[in-house]
Amino acid sequence: MQLGFVGLGKMGSSMVERLLAGGHQVAAYALSEESVRKVEALGASGASSLAELAGRLSCPRSIWIMVPAGDPVTQVIDDLLPHLSPGDVLVDGGNSYYKDSMRRHSLLRERGIGFLDAGTSGGVWGLRNGYCLMVGGDEETFLRLEPALRTLAPPGGYARMGSAGSGHLVKMVHNGIEYGMMQAYAEGFEILKHSPHGLDLARIAALWNQGSVVRSWLLELAENALRQDPGLDRHEGYVEDSGEGRWTILEAMERDVPAPVITLSLFERFHSRRPRSFAAKMLAALRRQFGGHAVRTR
Amino acid sequence: MQLGFVGLGKMGSSMVERLLAGGHQVAAYALSEESVRKVEALGASGASSLAELAGRLSCPRSIWIMVPAGDPVTQVIDDLLPHLSPGDVLVDGGNSYYKDSMRRHSLLRERGIGFLDAGTSGGVWGLRNGYCLMVGGDEETFLRLEPALRTLAPPGGYARMGSAGSGHLVKMVHNGIEYGMMQAYAEGFEILKHSPHGLDLARIAALWNQGSVVRSWLLELAENALRQDPGLDRHEGYVEDSGEGRWTILEAMERDVPAPVITLSLFERFHSRRPRSFAAKMLAALRRQFGGHAVRTR
Repeated sequence: MQLGFVGLGKMGSSMVERLLAGGHQVAAYALSEESVRKVEALGASGASSLAELAGRLSCPRSIWIMVPAGDPVTQVIDDLLPHLSPGDVLVDGGNSYYKDSMRRHSLLRERGIGFLDAGTSGGVWGLRNGYCLMVGGDEETFLRLEPALRTLAPPGGYARMGSAGSGHLVKMVHNGIEYGMMQAYAEGFEILKHSPHGLDLARIAALWNQGSVVRSWLLELAENALRQDPGLDRHEGYVEDSGEGRWTILEAMERDVPAPVITLSLFERFHSRRPRSFAAKMLAALRRQFGGHAVRTR
Repeated sequence: MQLGFVGLGKMGSSMVERLLAGGHQVAAYALSEESVRKVEALGASGASSLAELAGRLSCPRSIWIMVPAGDPVTQVIDDLLPHLSPGDVLVDGGNSYYKDSMRRHSLLRERGIGFLDAGTSGGVWGLRNGYCLMVGGDEETFLRLEPALRTLAPPGGYARMGSAGSGHLVKMVHNGIEYGMMQAYAEGFEILKHSPHGLDLARIAALWNQGSVVRSWLLELAENALRQDPGLDRHEGYVEDSGEGRWTILEAMERDVPAPVITLSLFERFHSRRPRSFAAKMLAALRRQFGGHAVRTR
């Protein structure tokens, strides 16, 4: 099918590459001219503005947006709107907050424009393996985009979750689970690392990936990382987050559902950013106040 | 090779079946005569006592023990000892505490008997997929058992982790990680379950298994469970533990390593056993003491 594509970061560029390989016609726009040149070399039609992108597509248009959540998505939609016609469809493939997606779906519907929220998982490996696509929105709009979804995903790797917002909701919780799984592996490997048995962590990850109960794709990535850098000495141990963990916890609070491990996994990332936290100083100060406790001072 | 096998529970019986299919000669003993009859039907030589089992094997003997951790392992070793000769080897394939395995290795070495601790993962699916085997003990003893290990494991699925105890240590931490992963999935699915979007959890698990970052063997099991019983109505939500999680936390404390998510995952299992806990009553009682808070009484 013919598809417009906005945003050519690591994910976006790979997705365009996969779409082109699948025989689709892609017109692409991104802030970075260099990124546009790269996908042009692969066969995409590059546009130098959103207006030009819209002009390159025949009606009804389908445009996939792959930019960071929040203001960038709002900006792209606002800037595209004057160039769209009733019957066009926008797909937000990024990690938007699902309530924003529900709102955008309603706003665009008033203009006769379809909207899908398509949670996309698979990271940079998606180019080869395919992306897992969790899609929310109207059935009719979903069916329109299905040829592209089928190309982007591995077999069985895309599905409509339900009405608008449900795609990003499912992706949000997916990422919350990911935080917890990563933290569980991280703690386990730290315990093994400090064992006096002198264990080979890369070898253990490799072994566990063969038939053990904890085998997973994340553990394959852990195996790669530990092979490349067995002590992870090239890593600083400073861990960012990109919002979905926080939203998962907000959702848990809104529904009165306990999610202690997902919550703690986010907080452990905060810990990594404050290795000598004020809280730790408070604890040390209070122990000193007891008297009798030796306390390290600066 | 020729192998003695003690313990024919779910794991043990399947392992004997896999060994027989791999062309090994197995003499088997278990407390349950019925279990012995079953593996006899598959080609094993059944024994009605540990003495008889030892008598069936030519020296030097190799005997795999697959019984519950703790007293049962001690009992089997004590009862076997009078019938063993220097050069024989015992393998503990169960979930013993690794410090017990280190102690047993030392005690048996004094008698000239080899000992391997072989952490075994794969559950009842191991019969088909092979068991992941994490082995600790002397290199020489490991090499003696290698033909059996190769049959039991999938390709690349067995390895010597290090000296005595290291196999059970690695298996213990493996199970600790498993607790954390399971809890992360459990929390995520509970959040999705309470969403007003009316989501199909089995479908989500199936989708995530195709190319998403959280794909794993545990998620395949979750998919099976949710397909068989979408609301999990046939489950009580009472979760046991079998010790390895506790030992992982003890190890973390011994090494001053924080393991909050693994610890909390064990405690969430405790929660499941005390749904209206005394702690919850304490909280309700304290809120009532504040005055002004409506509190449910019995």
